[in-house]
Amino acid sequence: MNFILSKEMLKKSEQSVAALFYEEDEAFNGVKKVAKKVMQDIELVLGVLPMKTTDKEQLGKYVIIFGTIGRSTILTELDEKNLINLSEIKGKREVFLCQLVDHPIGGVEKAFVIAGSDKRGTIYGLFHLSERLGVSPLVNWNRVYPQQKKTVSLGESYHYLSKEPSVKYRGFFINDEWPAFGNWTNKHFDGFNADMYEHVFELLLRLKGNYLWPAMWSARFNDDGPGLANAELANEYGVIMGASHHEPCLRYGEEYKYLRGENSIYGDSWNFINNREGIIKFWQDGLKRTGHFENVITMGMRGEADTSIMGKESTLADNIQLLRDVLETQNDLIENHINPNLSEVPRMLALYKEVEPFFYGDKQTAGLKNSEELENVILMLCDDNHGNLRTLPTEEMRKHSGGYGMYYHFDYHGGPISYEWINSSYLPKVWEQMTMAYDFGVRDLWIVNVGDIATQEFPLSYFLDLAYDFEKWGTSSINKTDAYTQEWVSQQFSGAFEQEELQDIFQLLTGYTKIAHKRRPETINVGVYHAVHYQEADITLQEINRLLTIAERLFERVDKKNASSFFSLIYYPAVGNLNLQKMWLLTEKNHYDAKLGKMEANKLADRIRECLKRDKELVEEYHSIDHERWFGMGLSEHIGFQHWNEEECQNPITMQVWPANKPRLVVSVNGVNQHTEGPAWHNNQVFLNDFLHSDRERASFTVSSLSELRAEYEIVCEDEWLSCSKKKGLLDGIEKTFEEIEVRIDRQKMDGETVGEITVSMPCGTCKIIVHATAEDYSELPNMTFIEQDDYISIEAEHYFLNEEGVHREEASRFQVIQGYGKTLSAVKAFPTTAYFSEIEDAPYLEYNLFVKKAGTYSLELYTQPSNPETTNQPIFCGIQIDEGKKNVESILPKGFRVDDPNWAAGVLNNIHRSYHSIQCQEGLNKLKIFAVSPGFVLEKLVIYQEGKQPAESYLGPPETYYVGRNKK
Amino acid sequence: MNFILSKEMLKKSEQSVAALFYEEDEAFNGVKKVAKKVMQDIELVLGVLPMKTTDKEQLGKYVIIFGTIGRSTILTELDEKNLINLSEIKGKREVFLCQLVDHPIGGVEKAFVIAGSDKRGTIYGLFHLSERLGVSPLVNWNRVYPQQKKTVSLGESYHYLSKEPSVKYRGFFINDEWPAFGNWTNKHFDGFNADMYEHVFELLLRLKGNYLWPAMWSARFNDDGPGLANAELANEYGVIMGASHHEPCLRYGEEYKYLRGENSIYGDSWNFINNREGIIKFWQDGLKRTGHFENVITMGMRGEADTSIMGKESTLADNIQLLRDVLETQNDLIENHINPNLSEVPRMLALYKEVEPFFYGDKQTAGLKNSEELENVILMLCDDNHGNLRTLPTEEMRKHSGGYGMYYHFDYHGGPISYEWINSSYLPKVWEQMTMAYDFGVRDLWIVNVGDIATQEFPLSYFLDLAYDFEKWGTSSINKTDAYTQEWVSQQFSGAFEQEELQDIFQLLTGYTKIAHKRRPETINVGVYHAVHYQEADITLQEINRLLTIAERLFERVDKKNASSFFSLIYYPAVGNLNLQKMWLLTEKNHYDAKLGKMEANKLADRIRECLKRDKELVEEYHSIDHERWFGMGLSEHIGFQHWNEEECQNPITMQVWPANKPRLVVSVNGVNQHTEGPAWHNNQVFLNDFLHSDRERASFTVSSLSELRAEYEIVCEDEWLSCSKKKGLLDGIEKTFEEIEVRIDRQKMDGETVGEITVSMPCGTCKIIVHATAEDYSELPNMTFIEQDDYISIEAEHYFLNEEGVHREEASRFQVIQGYGKTLSAVKAFPTTAYFSEIEDAPYLEYNLFVKKAGTYSLELYTQPSNPETTNQPIFCGIQIDEGKKNVESILPKGFRVDDPNWAAGVLNNIHRSYHSIQCQEGLNKLKIFAVSPGFVLEKLVIYQEGKQPAESYLGPPETYYVGRNKK
Repeated sequence: MNFILSKEMLKKSEQSVAALFYEEDEAFNGVKKVAKKVMQDIELVLGVLPMKTTDKEQLGKYVIIFGTIGRSTILTELDEKNLINLSEIKGKREVFLCQLVDHPIGGVEKAFVIAGSDKRGTIYGLFHLSERLGVSPLVNWNRVYPQQKKTVSLGESYHYLSKEPSVKYRGFFINDEWPAFGNWTNKHFDGFNADMYEHVFELLLRLKGNYLWPAMWSARFNDDGPGLANAELANEYGVIMGASHHEPCLRYGEEYKYLRGENSIYGDSWNFINNREGIIKFWQDGLKRTGHFENVITMGMRGEADTSIMGKESTLADNIQLLRDVLETQNDLIENHINPNLSEVPRMLALYKEVEPFFYGDKQTAGLKNSEELENVILMLCDDNHGNLRTLPTEEMRKHSGGYGMYYHFDYHGGPISYEWINSSYLPKVWEQMTMAYDFGVRDLWIVNVGDIATQEFPLSYFLDLAYDFEKWGTSSINKTDAYTQEWVSQQFSGAFEQEELQDIFQLLTGYTKIAHKRRPETINVGVYHAVHYQEADITLQEINRLLTIAERLFERVDKKNASSFFSLIYYPAVGNLNLQKMWLLTEKNHYDAKLGKMEANKLADRIRECLKRDKELVEEYHSIDHERWFGMGLSEHIGFQHWNEEECQNPITMQVWPANKPRLVVSVNGVNQHTEGPAWHNNQVFLNDFLHSDRERASFTVSSLSELRAEYEIVCEDEWLSCSKKKGLLDGIEKTFEEIEVRIDRQKMDGETVGEITVSMPCGTCKIIVHATAEDYSELPNMTFIEQDDYISIEAEHYFLNEEGVHREEASRFQVIQGYGKTLSAVKAFPTTAYFSEIEDAPYLEYNLFVKKAGTYSLELYTQPSNPETTNQPIFCGIQIDEGKKNVESILPKGFRVDDPNWAAGVLNNIHRSYHSIQCQEGLNKLKIFAVSPGFVLEKLVIYQEGKQPAESYLGPPETYYVGRNKK
Repeated sequence: MNFILSKEMLKKSEQSVAALFYEEDEAFNGVKKVAKKVMQDIELVLGVLPMKTTDKEQLGKYVIIFGTIGRSTILTELDEKNLINLSEIKGKREVFLCQLVDHPIGGVEKAFVIAGSDKRGTIYGLFHLSERLGVSPLVNWNRVYPQQKKTVSLGESYHYLSKEPSVKYRGFFINDEWPAFGNWTNKHFDGFNADMYEHVFELLLRLKGNYLWPAMWSARFNDDGPGLANAELANEYGVIMGASHHEPCLRYGEEYKYLRGENSIYGDSWNFINNREGIIKFWQDGLKRTGHFENVITMGMRGEADTSIMGKESTLADNIQLLRDVLETQNDLIENHINPNLSEVPRMLALYKEVEPFFYGDKQTAGLKNSEELENVILMLCDDNHGNLRTLPTEEMRKHSGGYGMYYHFDYHGGPISYEWINSSYLPKVWEQMTMAYDFGVRDLWIVNVGDIATQEFPLSYFLDLAYDFEKWGTSSINKTDAYTQEWVSQQFSGAFEQEELQDIFQLLTGYTKIAHKRRPETINVGVYHAVHYQEADITLQEINRLLTIAERLFERVDKKNASSFFSLIYYPAVGNLNLQKMWLLTEKNHYDAKLGKMEANKLADRIRECLKRDKELVEEYHSIDHERWFGMGLSEHIGFQHWNEEECQNPITMQVWPANKPRLVVSVNGVNQHTEGPAWHNNQVFLNDFLHSDRERASFTVSSLSELRAEYEIVCEDEWLSCSKKKGLLDGIEKTFEEIEVRIDRQKMDGETVGEITVSMPCGTCKIIVHATAEDYSELPNMTFIEQDDYISIEAEHYFLNEEGVHREEASRFQVIQGYGKTLSAVKAFPTTAYFSEIEDAPYLEYNLFVKKAGTYSLELYTQPSNPETTNQPIFCGIQIDEGKKNVESILPKGFRVDDPNWAAGVLNNIHRSYHSIQCQEGLNKLKIFAVSPGFVLEKLVIYQEGKQPAESYLGPPETYYVGRNKK
């Protein structure tokens, strides 16, 4: 017999007091509250709110039973009756069992039993039921409506035993909460109080997180509840509270500011040397206040507001000694006020900024590493604030009793440029980085800075799912981010959209985040993409316009009820991102065209103005939709940052041109910085080299107006093997400011000729387009051989000729392709990620075939992810070999590279490192081998050219060039 | 008894056949025609056209008698009667005698006798009478109306004997005649024919020129008359015809193009080697055709259309031999067809471009210098096309029998940038350069390229007056260009304006040409003047606006009759120049402000658009005024040249900013690139260093809007010695986009303090202006001592401490100040200009007093006129000495400097050379001596600073800094 829930049944139970939920008094309060939420979820699905009862008599035919081991008589009874087996979960962490049980109680035909190993186990179990019913974890945060159903069957038999979460503490950090989150909570909840946190805790728990760093730049979590209400609510829900890296002993940063003073019992100096007593008292009171709740206590001490504690003059030893003193003191306080068994008290020390050297010490001075003060303390590492891990535990360090944590960022307020407005994180990057963290033993604590939360729901879901179930989404599940995205889209929108529209949403989501992955919105500016080289601006604009079209179509399609969730989760972050990127690309083109005097520049200026207007409108729509549900959340500045802070940020400057006095036209070859008006006395030639690439059969040039006068042009090409899409045209400089002419090549007709000519006659000039072409046949060469054409080779890393296994600790190691993980296509990385190949003979490698014109020194540019070295003061190495030549181990980072230096800053803004290597090639075929050496070597692209002949500069690098076997385009 | 002309008297003579002019049949036709013009001049003055007669009986009481020795019976009679003395003029060149004679003929009471030594002498005499009556030489060219009078008295007795002109051949070149002159003549005269040349010849002769190169880029002077009418008319008027440097043997360039061909008797190749016969025939026919007229025959041969004759592979010796052969052939032709006595035939060889090395030869190969083929041939030198002389004759060369000529430019079509639109020549430069030419022995031929003539009337008048009367205006008359200008203004406009308005016109004329002297209109662009440094853009704009106000006031004032001459001679060239310069300065500011996001940028963009509109309107007004008198003359492109040719020239790009979302303001310190919004997290300090200069008591900063939101600011300064002109203000970003705040210092109150602070509080930031000041007392130091302040010293060259005489060939030599001849103030140059001081002990020098903060190496920048070395392959030297240190002879030109190289090009565009020298200073007072060495060293400014501490870059250089005795400002 199926366990069936139906509207009718629930209605009937309303009349006849047959309750669906069986609740015990002894259940945790938080569990009860969550059960109520699940009942509301059921109402969303079936249209009727089910009832609950503590009285077995009032139960209906089908019943939902929930409880926690030790807090549930009914569970004990069912276990005793062998209807369930509690030993499956007993003693485990945050585990639940869901099982259909026949006749659990007299009068009840079937029960859906949710048994939790602990409070959070039960809560996760309850929400598991909601998800089974098609309810999204974002149901209340984003008002995601589930598909409405008349009946829901939970099946005849069901037995689901959850896993222990992969990472122990999993959560997020509400940070940089002004102006967005702050305005939002003030409007809706009147402060950073328990009403708001109720909402946030639910989100966290539904996403299977268990750990939170609350907003702390202006708020005081333990005062704002009001009083302790926030902390008490957290405790009720089983939310483990943490605090950021510089807020020790359950005290939040703002508290000391608030309490200090001349007559304060805490003194008036955040200084452990000259106000030792005051500080200790301050900490002690914090521990006494909420130490009885679940916490991960931040240890150590830093200066106020993210600064270092001692002055610049202090020695390393002074600092280490001071910190050791602090740790000892804190441990004593914890032993005295919380638990004499320190090992039972979760504690964390952040190895952040200046604390890192205090931990490692140097040759003269032993650091805190391995010191007893840190026994059982989680050592929290962090990324570089821009999503790239920094130092990771060495093999030896992984033995540390307390384990490791990672502080990751989806939002950051700091250098080189902040990103706080809107989601700009890309799942493949999160996967690559966080799996690396896990593989390096960072498994005890994962916290992610989500800024204002809003628009971060998608990557946050992924982050917490990855932390919860690493087996499903982690290292072994390479290239599953798309599958994850599709599941996620389906989870949120299967109630609102048709299947193929879900596919469109998937495209929009991966599309806009990939574009943000090329460059985050706040950090884009003029001078990033090149206006013409390789047409990268135009190609990116095309992709943006394609995605914008999808977004608009979906928004037209969505019904009123689902508009809110679609807008907040998809439309706003996607269109906000894309519109802004579009604006800057148009600005790039506007400036370029203006400098040439093209009338088109003025049309581009109009379009830029449209984008600026749209940007404002979008924020306004976001703020007003669904009764101002998100009011405030769009307030972060996001255009044209000059510094890390929004200060002095600038809207794009638009350039306006003023028409020439004569009907002047200009011819530009598309993709290169080649243009001419065909003047009689100056250079009137341009070069079209596209057909030097064997795989190109189409190229183009543009004729543009420089005046607002009617101007005719005529195109003559006498080479039989070339054809132009037009023979003549007319521009008026007002309605029609330019025309693009396609040029096609028919290599069959070339008959040994390699140079052609196209003449464009215009009212004020005659221009010659010199066309160089190749018709050489490379079919004798092996497939996947790249040919030097137009003076360079560009290779997408996944297009290797050979992928050869290596050996690491007697296990196979090899490169794998991470799909989508690149600014243009994908990336390759060797696994296991922890392997360091000090013996290059053992290293896996990729072999690329290069065919070059002449022997000599070539430059090899490697485009790699902006990874940081996995240990301090190390480069990232790879091995490079040409044919049977020497295997050179070379760094892909500039000498002396450090996180926070200008090279690093350029890397995180560009989201690429480019390293330059020298290789000796022979004429013709060469085999280039790239060996894995250091972890963190993630290769996207290889560009090869004769020394000194660097191809034209661009943001994305030259697009991939021809290889044998490649399709024509 | 006075010779009085009155309206009544002339009217009476109309009725009673009493004629004023006595004309003899035997007089030259040209003379008769000129007499008629003088009669018309009299009509303009008195309102009645006088009559002339050949019948003595019909003469009235007062008579004007004119004639040429050998062509006038009456003159012979008067001479015989001792009423005049013809021996005063006999045998002289172009000389006339004007004398009042009582009772010259029976019945005549008094005659004004004009006796010419030759045809041109008589003509100049006749026009001398017109000028005496107040008629301008430009009367018919620019329709300059003389002051109307009821009577004119020529006095009781008068005896004026003219001088022989200083330069033998004095004329101009109508060049680059398309599109302006060509359209003009086609409209008014239907071609380049005698009707037009009648007009041009009159202009030339009234200006006391005698020599013309006709338009030749599309015209054929000897065919277009129609037929020989042009040449015949020239002969009639005594205009000596020349041709440009590449048009030998009385043949014009276009002729060969027109006549050549397969079946042509002249062959089909402009090549003396493979078409010798054809070319000789071509030349021979030219000489036969107009050789009997007065000419200066161009000799030699160049390639067609201003190119070299032999290919690049030819040796120097080949070329010299070929040219020698050409010259021999040409001399033979002239002997055979014009005059067997070659020395009587005026001939000219231009030492232009490649011909120059053929003349000089090299160590191995003797050049044409001193060769017999060139005996009695005028060697024509030339400037660098931009008004700077090139090679000049050495002392030895000055002995050359034929003498020297100079081809000078007021208009040029060529590199680095053409200037053809409008007058942009500056009299002090013409004076300095042409007096140097004369002093170096260039006295036989002066020709100036005036392009389309129109708007060049002012410098052309000066050029021809200087050539005609070097004693009056030449070397001995230093600093008389202002006096000349005042005379010229009075000559043109005393009939139209009041005395003080004439003074305004003088200011306008010197003002606009001085601004054009800083930079010619076609060559100005963005990136020339600095938008903020030293406020040079603002100061220049102020001066432009002052001049524009004068121009508008005068134009409002002028009556309809005189509007035409005022517009063409003053208003159009002045306002055309100034409006364009203003446009570019505004563009500079627009770009600068836009990059800072200032809303003011948009207002500047509007003003730029106004200037562009005004530019077009001006040309239209010029084309339409006075019944389209100047139609076509404004057609030359003149905005934003990129190359020498107008091709690809560009209007300014205007930048538009889009308002910030918050009421943001920015503070900029005026004169420096210092600005801040006062951000909390980034740099919020700026420095105001003006008061480091002892002579500055006022400085300023500007508060500007970055948004269109109302924003208040407040200024607080607690230093007693500083005061600000406002304490607070309000900007709305729409009507009011910025406010300038004046800061004053009261050094009496400083009391040892040297650093002050001004705080500006704004809605989105608080900025600190740090004010550094000095109150040091330097009065103990000698007057004229320059003090290093704000890290540099800037000296106007005329502010020397001592001007010490030198000795050259036993004559005194010294520096003199050429007033106004500098981009900022004036220049100094040693005279005589021909002196080369190989012994520095003999050299004159200027001594400057410098007071520097500490001992060490200082850089000395010399700002000099862009003179070229007076001999080929030479630098320009000067001597530099500090105190009693070594007298270093240093070049002010970069090593290997050549005319046509990029340094030269930069020099002629910037109208300055900057050379860098190293000097060793001691702490405190130093004496810097600058010695004259080479001719051509013309010093404008000296800038001194500690090595490596170059003051901020600017177009005009740092303004002069404080010296002891200087007034405060």
